[in-house]
Amino acid sequence: MSGRNLVAVDWGTSSLRGALIDADGRVLEERSFARGILTVAAGQFPPVFERCFGGSKQGWREAPYCACPAGFDDIAAHLEWVEPGRIAIVPGLSVDKDGVPDVMRGEETQVFGALQLLELANARLVLPGTHSKWVTVAKHRITDFSTWMTGEFYALLRQHSILARTLPNNDSDPEPDPGAFEQGVAHALRGQGLLHTAFSTRTLSLFNRMATDALPSYLSGLVIGEELKSQSLQRGDAVVVMGAEVLTARYQQALTQLGVSVQRVGAGATWRGLRAIADTLPRTGS
Amino acid sequence: MSGRNLVAVDWGTSSLRGALIDADGRVLEERSFARGILTVAAGQFPPVFERCFGGSKQGWREAPYCACPAGFDDIAAHLEWVEPGRIAIVPGLSVDKDGVPDVMRGEETQVFGALQLLELANARLVLPGTHSKWVTVAKHRITDFSTWMTGEFYALLRQHSILARTLPNNDSDPEPDPGAFEQGVAHALRGQGLLHTAFSTRTLSLFNRMATDALPSYLSGLVIGEELKSQSLQRGDAVVVMGAEVLTARYQQALTQLGVSVQRVGAGATWRGLRAIADTLPRTGS
Repeated sequence: MSGRNLVAVDWGTSSLRGALIDADGRVLEERSFARGILTVAAGQFPPVFERCFGGSKQGWREAPYCACPAGFDDIAAHLEWVEPGRIAIVPGLSVDKDGVPDVMRGEETQVFGALQLLELANARLVLPGTHSKWVTVAKHRITDFSTWMTGEFYALLRQHSILARTLPNNDSDPEPDPGAFEQGVAHALRGQGLLHTAFSTRTLSLFNRMATDALPSYLSGLVIGEELKSQSLQRGDAVVVMGAEVLTARYQQALTQLGVSVQRVGAGATWRGLRAIADTLPRTGS
Repeated sequence: MSGRNLVAVDWGTSSLRGALIDADGRVLEERSFARGILTVAAGQFPPVFERCFGGSKQGWREAPYCACPAGFDDIAAHLEWVEPGRIAIVPGLSVDKDGVPDVMRGEETQVFGALQLLELANARLVLPGTHSKWVTVAKHRITDFSTWMTGEFYALLRQHSILARTLPNNDSDPEPDPGAFEQGVAHALRGQGLLHTAFSTRTLSLFNRMATDALPSYLSGLVIGEELKSQSLQRGDAVVVMGAEVLTARYQQALTQLGVSVQRVGAGATWRGLRAIADTLPRTGS
């Protein structure tokens, strides 16, 4: 695949993105669909893929996980081929602690892409999202990671909980309110736990201590603050925050509140990582 | 109202219960409806009440909160009368910490009823439910309390999250699995936080380390363990657990895992508390 154009695909929980990438790593075209894996019924992955990118009709299979610690070479060596020489799935990573496994799939590629872009060998990274990943890299290898259902908890509380009665209509979110977000982070960091602090979204409104339009930002601060609280971060630590602008900006604000320095990397790291994997492969006839 | 039969009503988040209680505190009749406040639209409380108990057509109003610390006499002295001498609403309690308020309504009556039943002047109590309440009583007065959205988080995760895809069909829960519940409590107590630990419900299933039918009990252990972890409980502490059999049994199991001794009180404490409040009132013509 090296030396040829590459169709790179990132199929996440809530969206499906693809890019056409040339041999020099330039993105020639990008497509994005609201067809995350949560919207796709069992057995429907091949037709959805075909409609979005014009791809294979062959069966899809689950790529195995590589166990951590794992480096770039480990995942490049364990591609799962859907059509030999044409379509491959990058394996995800797994880790095991106290008999409880954790997994990621896609973020490892983004991490290795970011390490290349930033020329880093050691780093602490966070990839915020529906399921945020915190990743530790030592000597170019992913040694540990963990999943945090932060984005999903926010959506559950926003849409389906008793708080939805207090929050503004869900059809359109009001403008972000950085002050309310900061209050949410600060309250989360006091340490009582989200099961308790989430309820304050209701009581602050009940006692007219926060405007309705500020409540979604406050709740966002509560869940993100809860995630950060558990990361054993120290003032002066450095964290790489990866992903889309809106979300990484929020994490930057919250991490700054903790005295942690932040380096942000855009979503392009995924394409960089996938291009790099393709470049490890032998040239096939074309 | 003292000396007369009393219609005592407990209108909670997820159910509406009522009892006809005679002058000696005997429950003559009990009714329960799946018409918790979450199912009632604004303005519909009077007609729902009327259909369930045959009550007032007059307007309802919000009873104010009494600030903590508050004793039995404080709430009895601040009844909000809907129909003078006939229908009154017991005020709820509020507490304020770091500028963040918390509230309860109904549980205070249950607590005072339980203190009478158990002849206690000092206690730590928990009332598990959609929104669990932890209550501290010193010298017969409620000095502090806090709300935990444990039951609601469980329902959100069970019904609306990505975990719903892993858990058995939601229409009928499998038999409770005490072993899986214990594992959930233990994992929560390790301390990484529910945003992270909840995801293990998915990965344990993905790696075939837990049977599908055991997963709801495991998830229940995770959320209840998360609630307990934040209560600064020490081995040898004593806690009064109040409410319905199924839920108080689970809390007893989890608290026992922590080395905490448990005294359980059934739902009758509400009627005891309401009867006691009515008995403080002057006899009206009948």
